[in-house]
Amino acid sequence: MNVNGEHYETIWQKPDDGAVVQIIDQRALPHRFLIEDLTNYQQGIHAIRDMAVRGAPLIGATAAWSIYLAALEAQHTDNPDLFLADAAREIADARPTAVNLQWAVDRMLGVVMEIQDPSRRIEMAHNEAKAICTEDVHCCRQIGDHGLELITALSDEKQGAPVNILTHCNAGWLATIDWGTATAPIYLAHERGIAVHVWVDETRPRNQGSQLTAWELAEHGVPHTVVVDNVGGHLMQNGQVDLCITGTDRTSRNGDVANKIGTYLKALAAKDNGVPFYVAAPSTSIDWTMTDGRNQIPIEERSDEEVKFINGTDGDRIRRVRIVPENSAVKNYAFDVTPARLVTGLITERGVCVASETGLLELFPDKFPVHGR
Amino acid sequence: MNVNGEHYETIWQKPDDGAVVQIIDQRALPHRFLIEDLTNYQQGIHAIRDMAVRGAPLIGATAAWSIYLAALEAQHTDNPDLFLADAAREIADARPTAVNLQWAVDRMLGVVMEIQDPSRRIEMAHNEAKAICTEDVHCCRQIGDHGLELITALSDEKQGAPVNILTHCNAGWLATIDWGTATAPIYLAHERGIAVHVWVDETRPRNQGSQLTAWELAEHGVPHTVVVDNVGGHLMQNGQVDLCITGTDRTSRNGDVANKIGTYLKALAAKDNGVPFYVAAPSTSIDWTMTDGRNQIPIEERSDEEVKFINGTDGDRIRRVRIVPENSAVKNYAFDVTPARLVTGLITERGVCVASETGLLELFPDKFPVHGR
Repeated sequence: MNVNGEHYETIWQKPDDGAVVQIIDQRALPHRFLIEDLTNYQQGIHAIRDMAVRGAPLIGATAAWSIYLAALEAQHTDNPDLFLADAAREIADARPTAVNLQWAVDRMLGVVMEIQDPSRRIEMAHNEAKAICTEDVHCCRQIGDHGLELITALSDEKQGAPVNILTHCNAGWLATIDWGTATAPIYLAHERGIAVHVWVDETRPRNQGSQLTAWELAEHGVPHTVVVDNVGGHLMQNGQVDLCITGTDRTSRNGDVANKIGTYLKALAAKDNGVPFYVAAPSTSIDWTMTDGRNQIPIEERSDEEVKFINGTDGDRIRRVRIVPENSAVKNYAFDVTPARLVTGLITERGVCVASETGLLELFPDKFPVHGR
Repeated sequence: MNVNGEHYETIWQKPDDGAVVQIIDQRALPHRFLIEDLTNYQQGIHAIRDMAVRGAPLIGATAAWSIYLAALEAQHTDNPDLFLADAAREIADARPTAVNLQWAVDRMLGVVMEIQDPSRRIEMAHNEAKAICTEDVHCCRQIGDHGLELITALSDEKQGAPVNILTHCNAGWLATIDWGTATAPIYLAHERGIAVHVWVDETRPRNQGSQLTAWELAEHGVPHTVVVDNVGGHLMQNGQVDLCITGTDRTSRNGDVANKIGTYLKALAAKDNGVPFYVAAPSTSIDWTMTDGRNQIPIEERSDEEVKFINGTDGDRIRRVRIVPENSAVKNYAFDVTPARLVTGLITERGVCVASETGLLELFPDKFPVHGR
């Protein structure tokens, strides 16, 4: 989507130097728009671990480009296969929750490990990383098309009055390559002239809602309002939300949704007030082997510094200030799991389905090799 | 309770100057411990409106002392009755949600308007404000005793393992005169040697949890952990919360609870996971005339600056930084209403009851003059 009127994706090869991959350093947003160079796979891991890039699809794409960078590095080592295998393991371990990470690494390895010729291997790694990005853009666009139907129906019901959509965290284009997952239907609706208004959850502790989603929407002129995470229940009680759409970091095949901490609370409020709660779930974020997300998805605990300190601007400078007293302990769980029973539907690239094994099987019979039809 | 080992209440007459009332400026906590002088009723209104004091009982007490200050001022005017009546109206309008505000003003007026002699009027205003404070301390202590029974029972069930209690916002001693409402049972349990651990919700946007509750508990050595508001659902899903206790700004006589925004979301999570959800509700916070809190309690909207900016420390200095992009709108609803069906019980100064008209009638038959027994 656009930044200052110019089209960007979230990760790309440097135009004049193919051995460098570039990303937007999302930690500086919305205060600064910074481009960062990745010149080796370790920098790719850092970008993932330190959340310069975040969002399941973008994490996957960054992992793919990191394998490409590792392939470039491997040709100068004594044992390129070993180097690549080690690098792949390290990359896959950069974050524990995102299933896309392992998926992208496996896919890249499946291609490059078949090939021994160094330059051919690099070329294939390049092509595969690029394909992963292109496919993601296409996938988000398809999610957009399917989600658009939900928004259109609500817009018709409301006779053209703005459709109020609540979203949590950032499942916007900054979390993918372009379009976003949860935001793709919103951007498409906006481009089609359908009136929409987005309630943007601040999303503590890293504030990806107020810092990324709000920034994205503002750049595109999509009407939106930032609220603290505590507000969504009140809004839903009072008829101010027509639809919730969130993203997901990992969805188990029974439809349980791991997503940014706090998603579960919004799903409870949606259920209590009859507000449809949809999850934009590209098939790459679905863990087809996992049958009980609530009990099986590991929940990442992150540094307490994310809660104790916050970045903001004081006039022109970005400042980091402490907001929790020195003598208090902090726990920082990064995700929670919303049980399938609270999810109205999953918006996938192949259509919308019920959040259940049966629902997913209808759209993705090919993903159920053993128990499929 | 104690601050640096010294006992404090939240509002008191200046020891060497009875015409001055002193408060703790809670906006500076936890970074600074500042005492502020109130020398006229307008300063009392400012303290309430700008949230130098907050919490329903302390707002009531500050209103009472503001009437006392107004009585001091009134003696130098041409029409003391008119001056006092005008002052009372202004004081009652300082914040829209806290029922204690109107209650304290009415009680003070009922006493002082009966008396024409200026010095006698001032004396009576003084005595009544003091009585309101003394009664509040007693009331909190009684709430503590009744709530302690719930904690003791859980402690016995857990064979002495720490009872995990989640609280939202600050219904601690800083919100009252001493002890607090939701915290009174916790402080009492701690003093009795019962192992407790408190999950402290950060409570965006003003962070009363991380800035006030955590500070209070730290000063008393009560084990606690700060979490962002998004975490509570995950904790309850995973058996890490034995009990929720919150305060209330206004509870209608059918048991609907208006409290800090986000309380409703925690009550939903408690219900979904079978965690008991109690509300510490002194009878002064119960609106006996209101039969349907969900639809009748007005919800205060506060300045968007509370969401857009945050205070923290950068080494030694308190800094205010912007955390929401300039081009994004913000809505700041300060309270929500938790329907009675989600509340396990109300902990009042007369005991614990079901959150319903029947439940309250059993403990407070005298408060139902028309429909009572």
